[in-house]
Amino acid sequence: MTDITASDLTLEEKASLTSGRDFWTTKGVERVGVPSVMLTDGPHGLRKQTGGSDHLGLADSVPATCFPPAVGLAASWDAALAERVGAALGVESAIEDVAVLLGPGINIKRSPLCGRNFEYMSEDPIVSGVMGAGLVRGIQSQGVGSSLKHFAANNQEHDRMRASSDIDPRPLREIYLRGFQRVVEDAQPWTVMCSYNRINGVYASEDPWLLTQVLRGEWGFEGLVVSDWGAVNDRVVGLPAGLDLEMPASGGRTDAQLVAAVQDGTLDEAALDVAANRVLDLVRKSQERPAAAGPLDVDAHHALAREAAGRGIVLLRNEPVEGAESGILPLKRDAKLAVIGEFARTPRYQGAGSSLINPTRLENALDEIRAYAQAEVAFAPGFTLDASADASALRAEAVAAASAADVAVVFAGLPASEESEGFDREHMDLPAAQLELIDAVVRANPRTVVVLSNGGVVALPFAGTVPAIVEAWLLGQAGGGATADVLFGAVNPSGKLTETIPVRLEDNPSFGNFPGEFGHVRYGEGLLVGYRWYDAKGLEVTFPFGHGLSYTTFAYGDATASVDAAGDVLVTIPVTNTGAVAGREIVQVYTAPVSSVVQRAPRELKAFAPVSLEPGETVAVELTVRREDLAYWDIRVDGWIVEGGTYVVDVAASSRDIRSSVSVEIAGDPVDVPLSFESSVADLFQHPVAGPIVQQAMAEMFGGVDMGSGDEGMMKMMASFPIGRMVSFPGAPINREQLEQLIATANAG
Amino acid sequence: MTDITASDLTLEEKASLTSGRDFWTTKGVERVGVPSVMLTDGPHGLRKQTGGSDHLGLADSVPATCFPPAVGLAASWDAALAERVGAALGVESAIEDVAVLLGPGINIKRSPLCGRNFEYMSEDPIVSGVMGAGLVRGIQSQGVGSSLKHFAANNQEHDRMRASSDIDPRPLREIYLRGFQRVVEDAQPWTVMCSYNRINGVYASEDPWLLTQVLRGEWGFEGLVVSDWGAVNDRVVGLPAGLDLEMPASGGRTDAQLVAAVQDGTLDEAALDVAANRVLDLVRKSQERPAAAGPLDVDAHHALAREAAGRGIVLLRNEPVEGAESGILPLKRDAKLAVIGEFARTPRYQGAGSSLINPTRLENALDEIRAYAQAEVAFAPGFTLDASADASALRAEAVAAASAADVAVVFAGLPASEESEGFDREHMDLPAAQLELIDAVVRANPRTVVVLSNGGVVALPFAGTVPAIVEAWLLGQAGGGATADVLFGAVNPSGKLTETIPVRLEDNPSFGNFPGEFGHVRYGEGLLVGYRWYDAKGLEVTFPFGHGLSYTTFAYGDATASVDAAGDVLVTIPVTNTGAVAGREIVQVYTAPVSSVVQRAPRELKAFAPVSLEPGETVAVELTVRREDLAYWDIRVDGWIVEGGTYVVDVAASSRDIRSSVSVEIAGDPVDVPLSFESSVADLFQHPVAGPIVQQAMAEMFGGVDMGSGDEGMMKMMASFPIGRMVSFPGAPINREQLEQLIATANAG
Repeated sequence: MTDITASDLTLEEKASLTSGRDFWTTKGVERVGVPSVMLTDGPHGLRKQTGGSDHLGLADSVPATCFPPAVGLAASWDAALAERVGAALGVESAIEDVAVLLGPGINIKRSPLCGRNFEYMSEDPIVSGVMGAGLVRGIQSQGVGSSLKHFAANNQEHDRMRASSDIDPRPLREIYLRGFQRVVEDAQPWTVMCSYNRINGVYASEDPWLLTQVLRGEWGFEGLVVSDWGAVNDRVVGLPAGLDLEMPASGGRTDAQLVAAVQDGTLDEAALDVAANRVLDLVRKSQERPAAAGPLDVDAHHALAREAAGRGIVLLRNEPVEGAESGILPLKRDAKLAVIGEFARTPRYQGAGSSLINPTRLENALDEIRAYAQAEVAFAPGFTLDASADASALRAEAVAAASAADVAVVFAGLPASEESEGFDREHMDLPAAQLELIDAVVRANPRTVVVLSNGGVVALPFAGTVPAIVEAWLLGQAGGGATADVLFGAVNPSGKLTETIPVRLEDNPSFGNFPGEFGHVRYGEGLLVGYRWYDAKGLEVTFPFGHGLSYTTFAYGDATASVDAAGDVLVTIPVTNTGAVAGREIVQVYTAPVSSVVQRAPRELKAFAPVSLEPGETVAVELTVRREDLAYWDIRVDGWIVEGGTYVVDVAASSRDIRSSVSVEIAGDPVDVPLSFESSVADLFQHPVAGPIVQQAMAEMFGGVDMGSGDEGMMKMMASFPIGRMVSFPGAPINREQLEQLIATANAG
Repeated sequence: MTDITASDLTLEEKASLTSGRDFWTTKGVERVGVPSVMLTDGPHGLRKQTGGSDHLGLADSVPATCFPPAVGLAASWDAALAERVGAALGVESAIEDVAVLLGPGINIKRSPLCGRNFEYMSEDPIVSGVMGAGLVRGIQSQGVGSSLKHFAANNQEHDRMRASSDIDPRPLREIYLRGFQRVVEDAQPWTVMCSYNRINGVYASEDPWLLTQVLRGEWGFEGLVVSDWGAVNDRVVGLPAGLDLEMPASGGRTDAQLVAAVQDGTLDEAALDVAANRVLDLVRKSQERPAAAGPLDVDAHHALAREAAGRGIVLLRNEPVEGAESGILPLKRDAKLAVIGEFARTPRYQGAGSSLINPTRLENALDEIRAYAQAEVAFAPGFTLDASADASALRAEAVAAASAADVAVVFAGLPASEESEGFDREHMDLPAAQLELIDAVVRANPRTVVVLSNGGVVALPFAGTVPAIVEAWLLGQAGGGATADVLFGAVNPSGKLTETIPVRLEDNPSFGNFPGEFGHVRYGEGLLVGYRWYDAKGLEVTFPFGHGLSYTTFAYGDATASVDAAGDVLVTIPVTNTGAVAGREIVQVYTAPVSSVVQRAPRELKAFAPVSLEPGETVAVELTVRREDLAYWDIRVDGWIVEGGTYVVDVAASSRDIRSSVSVEIAGDPVDVPLSFESSVADLFQHPVAGPIVQQAMAEMFGGVDMGSGDEGMMKMMASFPIGRMVSFPGAPINREQLEQLIATANAG
């Protein structure tokens, strides 16, 4: 089929190419030898269904390695690791003859409550974009396509197929689209999956601005746009907007609509040709995939899953107790342990919905801890997953075990039923029985560690009382082993939070505007998403964005920063491992202009890099802040503008742990906003040509007026007057014709 | 001119009627005997300019009584008082032959920073509407028109002539328009003044939805719409939208545009007839005004100004010191006082801009305190108004005076230069020198009272350390005497806050979305304005909405509530004066439905009433919550809907001091939202006709699927699926035709 194009096909054949054959495959065109190809879930493992698909495509799938879901992988802040995981996903897809793996998902975590947060990367677009690009590069390195999803502004599950995400231009561009832009520009995914929701009233699947103007025109996307499964509202509208492929099958119904629309002239056949050619391109690319090297190396992929899981674990807190010099962790192998919590035995390792993997094997933390331990490891379930049993009896058993142990390790987390595609959480609390259990255990034995399993962040009311807290997210099939690796120090934790843990849900910026009602959700917090909000409001948080501890310590030297020929900012900082064990640090760079004509967050993440250091070792870490990442979206010119001036560059261990600050001077982009009758008096005064001329006129105008608050007040009051209105007032010192002349002179100058 | 109508006039004459002759008067039509009439500022006093007007209309005006600006008057929560003040304003206008007084202003105080907050009533629409209606009734009782302003959503001064207030339908209706609706429906102002700003991108002066559909169609407004001075952008667009009169004069330029537009067919002459007739109606009504009874009774109006000022003073705090049984206030007449602060001698009593009154006389607090005092009253300025002098020397002098006195009374406040029409404040702090002064004085003498003069609320970092704080706002020309009346207990304070005093500016709901940029301000906090936000977020405040103390105490009994035939809720509560002196209490009623299909604030003010009580006296206070005030704006039907069910009715002394709660059952309004392909599975399941039919079909559909989180998760996931999409999925148990039939059956049932 190498050279088949739309021009070789009939109208009906072209239409047929642009929707699925069934749940997971495209339609081939037998007449000309175009085969059907398969697209299948999901971002952290292959979910290829076995046998006939059910109505929703959620039945059993072939065994595959369950890597850490995005929430865990992103916490590694390690794009190279993401690329290795992606390559493994590509290998597994190739073995199963899957053309496109439906991931990664990089939607911004706007609210902790979004049911699908476990599938997403971060509250920050740079983290989302860099980690997403790593996954795409890895998957596609194996000749398998990725599908960047869910494009765009699909930040909740509630009413996701109808709700309009109502977002102003700056947050839409700077927060919600920026990560997508990064992945498209850096890694060129084969496909982009449009989301279910509407954006400012327009279905993503029907939005020519989104799918064509921005995605292709501005970002240079060259691949195919596929609908999320069931995201098509009206294909005759969607196809010319840029939706190339409808999935799953519509039973031919919407193909017939396209054919009829072409025939009656409401749809340009050229638009259908474009979409059909993109499907053909996709089929062609998938045909070029080299043959799979052999059967799945289950052990190797499991080992990678364990490595990745270990990198994603975040040590939130590790305080000494009872006069010890260092924290409880890592555990000593000869310590007498009480492992508490059903999750230690029955792990929560992934979320529900389209990303649910049938794992090749499954570790639990209890077995893995026992494999490390050289002393007795007691176990008490502490609670049941369905809350069916007598909570107080289970708690008493756990307290007894904790009391008898050197250290108690409590595995707490969210029930599986609370985290799924398709609905959101209604609160961010752990189950009350677990909170009571933790309180009782730490009272019984202050040497208590809490290990958390959760896809979305949870409130941590015990953050001040439990001395050691390990955030172990949902970590895939090898999460149990990875957790044991970290608990015993075989792996020194290096993960950091890609999402703020707020004190209360009410502190979250989306509170009061989530999840909306009657089909609309207002993104009222605007640019102030995640740490940008907590910092701007000066709110206390439980653990800040970027936070994560290690079993060693790192000293940062003085940062230096310079601007290169391309305008990028090169930042260098020496980082030293000042502790006794090897470790890995995630160095973060935040920037902020000293002054700005627009609203700015106090600081924004612009670059990050992991560095591995032996004890005593110092490395000069180099990071690059791209010039384009300094830009804001300017609604006056509908474009990105880098403001000129001084920028503060903060090199940091977290968003609230700035270790070194330097300044750089940035050359600004020109902004061409001509003077007009709508321009304000201030605009006019500041204009290099017109300013001096009008200052004289204005001085005459204000003669003899006393405002009661002095001339300064008068000038402040007048500054925002549109000049076209000003000249209409009785007795204005210059008339409209003179003003028109002045504007023409100024704009010509 | 009694019976002159537009049909008696030429096209040019009609056009000429619809814009001003100069800054303050309309154009007459001499040929047919239509006179010119005057419209003039402002809401808390008459500002009729003398001699020729200057370019901005801000030069000297005739002496008039300066009543308390809205910030002070509203704090009385006394609509009858507002009506009396309004009547006095009407008398002064009639004496000066002014047809329309340009007020009241009732815009919502969205941010403490709005430069014009001193001219507005409250952060709550019911307070704004009730107090505004009182003023309108009073003014118009004298045959003088009022002008309800600034219509609408003009909640900041920054870029006020261009900025678009971008507001979603519910907050626009329920917060920003509701007060205007109340005044129009209850008091029918002769004129409404459209604001400078745009609303959702459309100039208020050109918005047919605002000026005609809502204002006239829904609310029944019968008067004339006048532009704010300079608010006309394009008259040919504005006039048919409902803008009847442009002010000030355009020199005939825009009249000529209207004539040309009629002649070239772009403007329907009938629209011009409507506007001209409204101007003629206004002139006619003003001609019917009885002759003024005589010259201004300066003493009587000054006395009313003093009474009103006393009612507006809010006693924020009055704690005992040094083991005393009661608070420092009221002052004893024989106490040795140190009066500190330049504002005691040089009062701040009004704000700058169009509402600046040339007062008939002016009291200062220092003289008035000395008139009460029977002992020495020392005075130290403490600071200068222009911050020109040596602050530490002034402070030292003040501290010495305080140390030598029984009680120190510090008059602090905002400099006049910070509060004006035309620009907003940039922070909500008192000047640092004043804060240092207060700290130094209270350290020197713990028996310290702070009296505040400010139009917008200020942060009160000393609220926990200064034992007595009197919020004396800007109180007009008799504020000095009123303050002395309250300090010495001749007037028992009864004012309450119509605006929350937050701990920090960052806590305010508009923070981060104020004042916008490049011509747009997003009202991102939605419905959660003022106390609605602080309550929903559970934020600590310095003093809550509705708060205010008295020199006596009030006990509330048990409230009862019933629904009358009209559907209004009648609330009765016995209130007893349990202290030793006569006093006045503002009883407040808040409601909230127990459950709702839409977002709701934790509680919303719905009614309030002052009650005056002798010591020991009990009165059963009766309040009416109007049924229509229980409604929310439903975007599905674009209308007001009262939800049925149980409502909690809180009777309270402030928004955070609930004294008695009862429940009432409210019958709901029908909501007609027919089923469609866009309806969700949940909508379908809950439908009385279609529900039972589809439940059977759905049960078959889900056979054999395991979501990993159980059937409950599956059902939650499916609940928001649009039914039209559902049937498009491969293998759907019913097809589109069956669904269409089902929908038809359900909607017919």
